[in-house]
Amino acid sequence: MESRVKDPSLASRGREQLYWAERNMPVLMEIRRRFEKEKPLVGQTVAACLHVTKETGVLVRTLAAGGARVVLVPSNPLSTQDDVAAALAEEGIHVYAWRGMSEREYYNAIGFAISFYPTITLDDGADLTATIHKLWHGVKDESLNYVAETAGGVDVEKLVAGLRGGTEETTTGVIRLRALKKAGKLVYPIIAVNDSYTKYLFDNRYGTGQSTWDGVLRATNLLIAGKVVVVAGYGWVGRGVAMRARGLGARRVIVVEADPIRALEAVFDGFEVMPMDKAAEVGDIFITATGNVRVINLGHIFKMRDGAVLANTGHFNVEIDVAGLERVATAKRRIRPYLDEYTLPGGKRVYLIAEGRLVNLAAAEGHPSEVMDMSFANQALAAEYLVKNKLAPDVYKLPDELDREVARLKLKTMGIEIEEMTEEQRQYLSSWTLGT
Amino acid sequence: MESRVKDPSLASRGREQLYWAERNMPVLMEIRRRFEKEKPLVGQTVAACLHVTKETGVLVRTLAAGGARVVLVPSNPLSTQDDVAAALAEEGIHVYAWRGMSEREYYNAIGFAISFYPTITLDDGADLTATIHKLWHGVKDESLNYVAETAGGVDVEKLVAGLRGGTEETTTGVIRLRALKKAGKLVYPIIAVNDSYTKYLFDNRYGTGQSTWDGVLRATNLLIAGKVVVVAGYGWVGRGVAMRARGLGARRVIVVEADPIRALEAVFDGFEVMPMDKAAEVGDIFITATGNVRVINLGHIFKMRDGAVLANTGHFNVEIDVAGLERVATAKRRIRPYLDEYTLPGGKRVYLIAEGRLVNLAAAEGHPSEVMDMSFANQALAAEYLVKNKLAPDVYKLPDELDREVARLKLKTMGIEIEEMTEEQRQYLSSWTLGT
Amino acid sequence: MESRVKDPSLASRGREQLYWAERNMPVLMEIRRRFEKEKPLVGQTVAACLHVTKETGVLVRTLAAGGARVVLVPSNPLSTQDDVAAALAEEGIHVYAWRGMSEREYYNAIGFAISFYPTITLDDGADLTATIHKLWHGVKDESLNYVAETAGGVDVEKLVAGLRGGTEETTTGVIRLRALKKAGKLVYPIIAVNDSYTKYLFDNRYGTGQSTWDGVLRATNLLIAGKVVVVAGYGWVGRGVAMRARGLGARRVIVVEADPIRALEAVFDGFEVMPMDKAAEVGDIFITATGNVRVINLGHIFKMRDGAVLANTGHFNVEIDVAGLERVATAKRRIRPYLDEYTLPGGKRVYLIAEGRLVNLAAAEGHPSEVMDMSFANQALAAEYLVKNKLAPDVYKLPDELDREVARLKLKTMGIEIEEMTEEQRQYLSSWTLGT
Amino acid sequence: MESRVKDPSLASRGREQLYWAERNMPVLMEIRRRFEKEKPLVGQTVAACLHVTKETGVLVRTLAAGGARVVLVPSNPLSTQDDVAAALAEEGIHVYAWRGMSEREYYNAIGFAISFYPTITLDDGADLTATIHKLWHGVKDESLNYVAETAGGVDVEKLVAGLRGGTEETTTGVIRLRALKKAGKLVYPIIAVNDSYTKYLFDNRYGTGQSTWDGVLRATNLLIAGKVVVVAGYGWVGRGVAMRARGLGARRVIVVEADPIRALEAVFDGFEVMPMDKAAEVGDIFITATGNVRVINLGHIFKMRDGAVLANTGHFNVEIDVAGLERVATAKRRIRPYLDEYTLPGGKRVYLIAEGRLVNLAAAEGHPSEVMDMSFANQALAAEYLVKNKLAPDVYKLPDELDREVARLKLKTMGIEIEEMTEEQRQYLSSWTLGT
Repeated sequence: MESRVKDPSLASRGREQLYWAERNMPVLMEIRRRFEKEKPLVGQTVAACLHVTKETGVLVRTLAAGGARVVLVPSNPLSTQDDVAAALAEEGIHVYAWRGMSEREYYNAIGFAISFYPTITLDDGADLTATIHKLWHGVKDESLNYVAETAGGVDVEKLVAGLRGGTEETTTGVIRLRALKKAGKLVYPIIAVNDSYTKYLFDNRYGTGQSTWDGVLRATNLLIAGKVVVVAGYGWVGRGVAMRARGLGARRVIVVEADPIRALEAVFDGFEVMPMDKAAEVGDIFITATGNVRVINLGHIFKMRDGAVLANTGHFNVEIDVAGLERVATAKRRIRPYLDEYTLPGGKRVYLIAEGRLVNLAAAEGHPSEVMDMSFANQALAAEYLVKNKLAPDVYKLPDELDREVARLKLKTMGIEIEEMTEEQRQYLSSWTLGT
Repeated sequence: MESRVKDPSLASRGREQLYWAERNMPVLMEIRRRFEKEKPLVGQTVAACLHVTKETGVLVRTLAAGGARVVLVPSNPLSTQDDVAAALAEEGIHVYAWRGMSEREYYNAIGFAISFYPTITLDDGADLTATIHKLWHGVKDESLNYVAETAGGVDVEKLVAGLRGGTEETTTGVIRLRALKKAGKLVYPIIAVNDSYTKYLFDNRYGTGQSTWDGVLRATNLLIAGKVVVVAGYGWVGRGVAMRARGLGARRVIVVEADPIRALEAVFDGFEVMPMDKAAEVGDIFITATGNVRVINLGHIFKMRDGAVLANTGHFNVEIDVAGLERVATAKRRIRPYLDEYTLPGGKRVYLIAEGRLVNLAAAEGHPSEVMDMSFANQALAAEYLVKNKLAPDVYKLPDELDREVARLKLKTMGIEIEEMTEEQRQYLSSWTLGT
Repeated sequence: MESRVKDPSLASRGREQLYWAERNMPVLMEIRRRFEKEKPLVGQTVAACLHVTKETGVLVRTLAAGGARVVLVPSNPLSTQDDVAAALAEEGIHVYAWRGMSEREYYNAIGFAISFYPTITLDDGADLTATIHKLWHGVKDESLNYVAETAGGVDVEKLVAGLRGGTEETTTGVIRLRALKKAGKLVYPIIAVNDSYTKYLFDNRYGTGQSTWDGVLRATNLLIAGKVVVVAGYGWVGRGVAMRARGLGARRVIVVEADPIRALEAVFDGFEVMPMDKAAEVGDIFITATGNVRVINLGHIFKMRDGAVLANTGHFNVEIDVAGLERVATAKRRIRPYLDEYTLPGGKRVYLIAEGRLVNLAAAEGHPSEVMDMSFANQALAAEYLVKNKLAPDVYKLPDELDREVARLKLKTMGIEIEEMTEEQRQYLSSWTLGT
Repeated sequence: MESRVKDPSLASRGREQLYWAERNMPVLMEIRRRFEKEKPLVGQTVAACLHVTKETGVLVRTLAAGGARVVLVPSNPLSTQDDVAAALAEEGIHVYAWRGMSEREYYNAIGFAISFYPTITLDDGADLTATIHKLWHGVKDESLNYVAETAGGVDVEKLVAGLRGGTEETTTGVIRLRALKKAGKLVYPIIAVNDSYTKYLFDNRYGTGQSTWDGVLRATNLLIAGKVVVVAGYGWVGRGVAMRARGLGARRVIVVEADPIRALEAVFDGFEVMPMDKAAEVGDIFITATGNVRVINLGHIFKMRDGAVLANTGHFNVEIDVAGLERVATAKRRIRPYLDEYTLPGGKRVYLIAEGRLVNLAAAEGHPSEVMDMSFANQALAAEYLVKNKLAPDVYKLPDELDREVARLKLKTMGIEIEEMTEEQRQYLSSWTLGT
């Protein structure tokens, strides 16, 4: 099938975006230079179901440089950068993506990817992987009807037989795949890129930490200094979001968390902790980052102050009860791009950013290139690793040496030199008889 | 003369913007409600030479609500929000403003303002006030030719005779006007709104502090965590910019400052201090905030690392030697909106944001509404004060009571209660005989 | 009269302390080297009523090196470092000071200082200056009876006639002296050293900011991370204390402030603001820094949680109602040096540090040497200035050039180089005709 | 054998210290109340080789309340609080500890502990456990001669046969014990208390983070604001130390780290990273926190600036080459308690805190009680767990439920309420078919 993008004429602007991203992704570019020489992916078809951003473009070009045929579809209906999609399509990547897809179009895109009989899947949230598994296990749901519209004649046996493996980018996706494995239903091996230190320690904390606020500022232009910010979830994303709220001058940063150890860390990190029920009454800005469902429900929303702003930076748009809000609101209007005003019965107004979808990807540009540099270096190395190693169906971590190598390259490209252990120090660390 | 804006059809989007700003400017809205009743500005023509933003729109509507005839022209060729300009023009404000004016058009706008024989001028950077003084003192320069194109027949005697006074918003403008006063050339009284505590302690530090980074992020989408940031100037703006650079995770924040006391404060605030000559060699991102000229010169630029990013957040676009850069660059191209790549002889590339103009206004939306709420509350009160009090030509501060009233209103609208002194405490503070 | 110290045999330990302080006060040491050559204070008797610390010792030695006869008495009964007092006494400074003086002994010390007919007074809190004024104006109070015990025969006319001037170190003292001047009662000129930028911008914010917490930690060994800290007062001291509370990980930092502008700054600096009445209910640790009286009263204390810790870092021990606490407590015991437990009716316990006296001087060592280096450089230069210039009775600021010189020396001794303005830049800052 | 402490008459002061610690260790006190009822340790002899501090005293009392016979010896020759040791000895704990033990006395203490035939060992740094293993494996070294002086006749077979298990508190100790296990030489089970989240995520980061600086301030009284601080190691301790250096206003915080992933985290956390060789040239204050040997060697020291201050906060005093420093210094003197000045050939002086031993325990009071509350709650639960469960020789983690229970109790005692998941949320987290 042919690529389908919003507007092919945006390609030249997309190329500039890709140029800028490549300037800021030196680790991935170093891998690309090697791939160009070694061509480790020749013969592979890689289906990437990722946010279609300039950074993904740099990854996709790298995979192509390694010899792969590449198909690119979005992992979120709202996050596609149309100019980048156009540029990649023009270069021969098989792209099916535009910003603002309907749910049906979104699953059409996944069907498009499947129709190429990929040998490797790259996933972000596990929608592509889950779809393949649904097809295999004969699960029925509405999304599969949409998938069938573009992947109608696909032979599932042949598809799965050809799959060498896949990768998964997110915490949320890895949880889904581990559940699948635990249920005995995983049919091909997955490298949980999210488990690489150079991925999960960095992109969520520093990348989402910044880009969430970037999205909030673009959508609202509010001053964060002096505000009461409520962050739901104190995983890596929540930490980053809370840390930057503090850095931007919020006068109270309140963390809502159900896990007692994380909650205690939040307290000792200098944040307030309370249940959402109480936080709802005092917050000015609410950010969800839990990976869970309905962490802001209608009961919470009714308790909020007039003018409260809501945004989600967890993977799926289920963290805020948007459907409930739509149902009860007496009026709704868009007052800025990505900012909707809902009037509640009684007259209070709350403001929802980007329809409750990932705020950093919808209202800003997602993770900055520098941090995706590491995540996508892991993706590229994982794809290569799947080709070079035959793995049984399970969820794997990328080998430590590759992980550390990414860190080493990143430091090098930043011009930062680190300490080298002496021989004496290496020995000291492994001895046990030395005393006080 | 008739209003001139980019596109009148943008009015409805502009009205939404104004609505959102009004939601976030409760102090100014409270003043507006009073103005609507008391009409203190009836009979006045107010010429506002301000950044044409949604926040300025809320001020201008407030002045109109007070009974004034209002003319609005931009104080910067790049900062106009065209939708807001369209909405205001539609409501009967006399607007002459669009984003991306040429220098000639910029002075045409000032001429337009003058042609209305304003009785009160509101200024931001003192261009309107300076122009009136040039006309009065018979100074000749090219800008006046452009002014004449729209204000050709203006009778300067009559103009000045009618002026009750003006206000000035910025540090930079106040310095210019004090120089004018010192030279014995000031011909009408000016209230230096910038000298109000609720203005200068807040908008530069917290407003520019945040919006500068908002501009940098929109223009570049770079990750600030891990970067080396160089801030030139440690006045209120520089402090805010440095503080937020730290808050966003920069690994080094270097302050360049010529005043030893400010430099020492920067050191004790936890920043590095060095001359630009040395900072140029290590910085990733450079922000100028000095109010001075050529603080980043070609010598500095030649020392920078490949990939350095330059932005200005001081009032005028003279802080970075853009002209010099244009002259020596071997290539230049726009790679994103507001981001130009210059290739230097030898191949190094540097990136200039928004042509060296105010980064927060050009690449983002300027100060957030909440902080302009206070600055513009001072402006509105200053205009009223000029009507109610006949002042001699000098530079004045708004009376302290008005200043504190703005603070009190702001706290109230934020729902924050403060301590009240007891009678005993009031007495204690004025006694001198009490000992240890 | 002879020096009176706790234990002369502590002199050698005191000398080590002075050695360490001198290592960390390079600006004052540079002034000392000049004084040794120029002897500007020959013929003067300087009475210093200052906290008797190692840093004061370095100042006092500097004045002696300049040729002055020096008398040293404490400005606080609890802050004397006995070893330093011993060392100075041994070197010929006239010292009357030991830690834990009674109120009577404290005023004996002031009488001791007066008995030398000082020509210059250095004061910290204005007790010495106030006493001289009370003598002159014939005010009667109990403290003067104690003063008379050591200064019985002093001829007040002769005393005042001989006074060239004095200096005052603190905000609190300057307020007292300005009140005196306003009442027309000031009889000799005072240099408000506290008004020097290199004094007031630094020692309270950074010095007290740190040393207050040093005192709290030494007295309690509590973990600050996770605590709710309440800071009364958002002047320079309060800012420093709040900033460091945040830096040590407090989960809420609440500022109590009566001035709306300062309160608003606290909010925008990222702190919570509320009245003490409400803060009392949620705080774990309370620090007063207002310069006012009874900012924590019994009503507040009764609202506090079991285990609340109270400390004062304002100048006088009147900020917490210690007398009231003593009166109502059902039990009191000292559980650590500088930490007293009070049991309230009903059984709740609160903990008072250092009897409500200056926590940083009583429970720790006061400002670190590096910051006193600047304050005392101003003191030394002020003493010299009083000798070289005959001033009328008023409250003065040290000339700006001296102030900036202190900053310049400090930066130099820290090895920090600052920017130099170009000629073009100097001119630009004074011109008014330049436009956008 | 009888207890041996510095001075039994210090007992009453020690009791006050214990009282204060108990006030701040509510989780351990709650466990104590249960132990008093359930007596889970009846019949056990617990040998605790821990820092003899007030917090350890609260643990030891808790174990005794549970029915155990308790022996207490120090895990560091410099960290004993003599008043606490006296109080515990008086209460019937078998204590052999005083501050400033020689190496010989230190191993005498370990022999003392062994002579009681403990059934459970609690260790901090693994010296007691290692000694038992050396005895068992017939290793010979000088320390064993000292051990024999107090444990001469001990029957090693009987000793080991009686051991139900032990616990280990530190990262360093766990590394030693894992090495022992790997070498096939571990003879009884160890619970690595350090692996509990409520231990390792908290005490090093927040406890050592604060108490290290408390020790530095007590030893030097230096101002941290404006300083260049070098932290060697970016493990949990190093993170805490770096974070608090920033919080106290250091103008540069430089991290020295050999692991690329940790180094990169430091960079993204906003710190500078470089090798010690370069950091040595610019640092004012150096803190080692690596668990490794000679991370500051003579080569580094010779590069340092005159006045550099060195301290160690890693477990053992081997991180700074103190022996080398002693050897090359041309002069040495103690200028304050815990602060030694070394003059190097050429005249430069460096300052070493607490002889390179753990700065927070030697110069301050170790971790604050609130954080030890959790660590020691884990210790008490681990001792109970060893009694209730028969384990094979290996290194274990405390079960997760116990770990979370400690967190839950801690939050409860702080009055902090956390979120509760709904049933819907619990189910959502385990499902895999849900999509975008």
